[in-house]
Amino acid sequence: MAYAYWKSGKTKDFAVFDLFFRKNPFQGEFTIFAGLEECLKFLKKFHYSASDIEYLKETLPSSLEDEFFEYLKTVSAKDVKLYAMAEGSVAFPRVPLMRIEGPLIIVQLLETTLLTLVNYASLMATNAARYRIAAGSMKLFEFGLRRAQGPDGGLSASKYSYIGGFDGTSNVLAGKLFNIPVKGTHAHAYITSFNDFSELRNVYLEAKDGGPPRDLLELALTWRTNILPLFNVFSLETSEGELAALISFAIAFPDGFMALVDTYEVQRYSTSMNRINSDTFKPRNKYRSGLINFCAVALALNDLGYRAIGIRLDSGDLAYLSNVARHYFTEIAVKYNLSWFENLMIMASNDINEETILSLNEQGHKINCFGIGTHLVTCQRQPALGCVYKMVELNGYPRIKLSQDVGKVTMPGCKDAYRLYSESGHALVDLLQRSVEPPPEVNEKVLCRHPFEESKRAYVIPSRVEKLLNLQWENGEICQELPTLQQIKEKVQMSLKTLRPDIKRNLNPTPFKVAVSDRLYTFLHDLWLKNAPIGELS
Amino acid sequence: MAYAYWKSGKTKDFAVFDLFFRKNPFQGEFTIFAGLEECLKFLKKFHYSASDIEYLKETLPSSLEDEFFEYLKTVSAKDVKLYAMAEGSVAFPRVPLMRIEGPLIIVQLLETTLLTLVNYASLMATNAARYRIAAGSMKLFEFGLRRAQGPDGGLSASKYSYIGGFDGTSNVLAGKLFNIPVKGTHAHAYITSFNDFSELRNVYLEAKDGGPPRDLLELALTWRTNILPLFNVFSLETSEGELAALISFAIAFPDGFMALVDTYEVQRYSTSMNRINSDTFKPRNKYRSGLINFCAVALALNDLGYRAIGIRLDSGDLAYLSNVARHYFTEIAVKYNLSWFENLMIMASNDINEETILSLNEQGHKINCFGIGTHLVTCQRQPALGCVYKMVELNGYPRIKLSQDVGKVTMPGCKDAYRLYSESGHALVDLLQRSVEPPPEVNEKVLCRHPFEESKRAYVIPSRVEKLLNLQWENGEICQELPTLQQIKEKVQMSLKTLRPDIKRNLNPTPFKVAVSDRLYTFLHDLWLKNAPIGELS
Repeated sequence: MAYAYWKSGKTKDFAVFDLFFRKNPFQGEFTIFAGLEECLKFLKKFHYSASDIEYLKETLPSSLEDEFFEYLKTVSAKDVKLYAMAEGSVAFPRVPLMRIEGPLIIVQLLETTLLTLVNYASLMATNAARYRIAAGSMKLFEFGLRRAQGPDGGLSASKYSYIGGFDGTSNVLAGKLFNIPVKGTHAHAYITSFNDFSELRNVYLEAKDGGPPRDLLELALTWRTNILPLFNVFSLETSEGELAALISFAIAFPDGFMALVDTYEVQRYSTSMNRINSDTFKPRNKYRSGLINFCAVALALNDLGYRAIGIRLDSGDLAYLSNVARHYFTEIAVKYNLSWFENLMIMASNDINEETILSLNEQGHKINCFGIGTHLVTCQRQPALGCVYKMVELNGYPRIKLSQDVGKVTMPGCKDAYRLYSESGHALVDLLQRSVEPPPEVNEKVLCRHPFEESKRAYVIPSRVEKLLNLQWENGEICQELPTLQQIKEKVQMSLKTLRPDIKRNLNPTPFKVAVSDRLYTFLHDLWLKNAPIGELS
Repeated sequence: MAYAYWKSGKTKDFAVFDLFFRKNPFQGEFTIFAGLEECLKFLKKFHYSASDIEYLKETLPSSLEDEFFEYLKTVSAKDVKLYAMAEGSVAFPRVPLMRIEGPLIIVQLLETTLLTLVNYASLMATNAARYRIAAGSMKLFEFGLRRAQGPDGGLSASKYSYIGGFDGTSNVLAGKLFNIPVKGTHAHAYITSFNDFSELRNVYLEAKDGGPPRDLLELALTWRTNILPLFNVFSLETSEGELAALISFAIAFPDGFMALVDTYEVQRYSTSMNRINSDTFKPRNKYRSGLINFCAVALALNDLGYRAIGIRLDSGDLAYLSNVARHYFTEIAVKYNLSWFENLMIMASNDINEETILSLNEQGHKINCFGIGTHLVTCQRQPALGCVYKMVELNGYPRIKLSQDVGKVTMPGCKDAYRLYSESGHALVDLLQRSVEPPPEVNEKVLCRHPFEESKRAYVIPSRVEKLLNLQWENGEICQELPTLQQIKEKVQMSLKTLRPDIKRNLNPTPFKVAVSDRLYTFLHDLWLKNAPIGELS
């Protein structure tokens, strides 16, 4: 296509393209725009290497003129201007995330890469932001590398889920590359790699304040005997392997003791027991229990001045098990006067998605941290955002793409976008205008029109007007200081705060209004009528 | 976790892990194993760089002993053995795709990367193979880069969809890196970038055999007038822009003329027309039509000795439009005695998935090529394959992971896997055995048992026995010659050929049988009973 443009002498044609999406993902009513930094870095590097050109020469038909390849050698993004929303902004259908201006052939060559860099980044950040809303103040960690769509898919997932509201990742390379907090626990295999106490080559641990080493196993065994009645357990078939594994892990990470407790059983309960309120819960179990082993080791660590972090649940009824665990943590806290024990972290990590979190919230649970993998990183509910890249102007003349489907009609011409805010700081509407129009003004009445329904109009008097598309790239340079990952992450939360809660809710959210100015309305519809065929009935 | 292993003195423990999945993707009954080459290349490179270790030192708790980081410097995969199926084989639940043996800590450090490299590769190859089955002999091109999960997700998609049965990709970098055929057409923007004939800076094209240049526009306009009656069109409101764009594209690619014909209208029909058999189809339309413009240009090219390739349809009722297009191609072929015109390529590319192809097949269509994007590359129907990596043996002792869910119980011990074939060459069953057992023999009766249902047993007398897991990596070296991409692609088709059609069908496919030997059955169940808790009713 580039060759055909070149061959047609269109290298100097000046085009304006909009990059936008038509529908919010995940049946929601908002999207987080992300990927801008990657786009700008791509523009910076954009060129065809000698080996690229060699490959193209071999691959394209031999009839192509050599001069074209000479031309390709000179190609760069220096004559391109890119306007974009701030990375981390909430964004809505039809409002351009980016406007790209420049020589037609160049702007067209950028298309696929810009789409690739924006589509998944924005999808991922939006997905993460939705989990963040569902999870409230709970901690969220991204655990998805093994299920991601390729190694780089995994890295992008870590980065953009952090931006969207996650607290960290288990992907250590992402931690290293992007300076994201890393968090991991051990796997079931760690527990099953121990059979019995004889495998513990060392059971001694120094006290935190430097006291003499003490036998952690012995301490834990004593604690286990002491707390058995509390768990209503009177005899215990030992699972030495599990306890041995936890002891060894505690010795390795005395200040970071976090244990997976469901390799065997979290806490066995008799079959007649009602799964009711944990306050009245009286298990009568005498089998091995990850929870008892964990508490025994955590109490032993406490004797040496260390505070355990918590447990991870990776199977079973997470609401129920978390209530059980919190119940015992509280009992121990009270009985031994260790108030921090009540607040031990309970992490859940079994195939969690947004709906699971919402359902857990409804059931009532005591989880305060989630590790989320597959559903998060692959965006299982909708694995692609449908951003498109459409020509809206060529050599100063507007372009419109018509379609039987009104939703697919493009907004012609070079446009600007403004977000109008109420006095209380809420976003009221996004307004598209022709770029030649003066921007809306604070405290002045602005007519906002539905782009397609003639009778739908509203006056808005904004208390604040935000220009959404700002120049980011010009003369071959990034022309705004790039925000840090942390700043983009904060931008997401600030931007979400300006949305009314009903727009953000999971079930039947209210659409945010996207309007056009009166002039753009007329411009659009005049052009539409001029270009649309008149049918013929017969 | 690695530190805890190290600290516990477990660096020399010898572990065996299986990498396998529990359920075929896409509600199907087969999976294509892919990603092996990437895994082997990863093993080759596996180490921690100085900067990795620096990062880990900064990030992990300061209590970690320095010697551990010294140890990390020495880490490599040289003491690891990796057995795997041939890349491109069909594979089934529970049968290990790989068996990894070596020092516990090393084998554990490899886990996430091996899973990442196998999961998406196999998912993608399987998805592509399913499209291939649905599409029969039609051409399939991967067009998904812009919607892929990150740039590398896009590259992997191109590579593994080619392996799975696609004919090429629009991803030029994938073409360059993996030597995959590349294929692209122009976009709607190319058509809309032309307004009228005045923009054609050149309309002359030399004949293929070197004759004098002739005016392609003039030829096409003449042809368009000539063929109008054939299309039952008697007057034509000109859409100069579309014809100008097609002329310019034809001049750029006289031997590769492939046109997108639905920017405006493929072929307008009057509203009273029944959408019936294309033989009786009589449109009465007088508006601009991509199809008429395409045919005019294709016939003009023919005058100069060039053969057009075909059209692309990117919207509308694809079955219907393809029938219409083929109908006219045939009429022209007959009328002008150009038999090749009848066989012009009709490519469809609008949000195609496996179901669309099957539904088109049912409706009857004349498409012979698909360009497939989003659904293919993101594996929309199921965006992750759930491969897991489980310890099955440690220091010679079997390990079993129990679960309330029988499907999640692991097969303990070091095992081998065999595929038994019938005389006709069909795969009958995959048989798992303990590695200490002798392999099944050709023409000898083999008892195959269901792993969990005691009474389900069958005798099989195989005509061929294939050992599935073969040594691929030992002593720090790849120990089999790596097949080329082309050979892997062929392996997929050969391997699929050995499956009965009912296993491969889209609707309610029959599960392929995976069995265990009698010895493995007993071994598994003895270990299970020994390890499972006895409950207590009360």
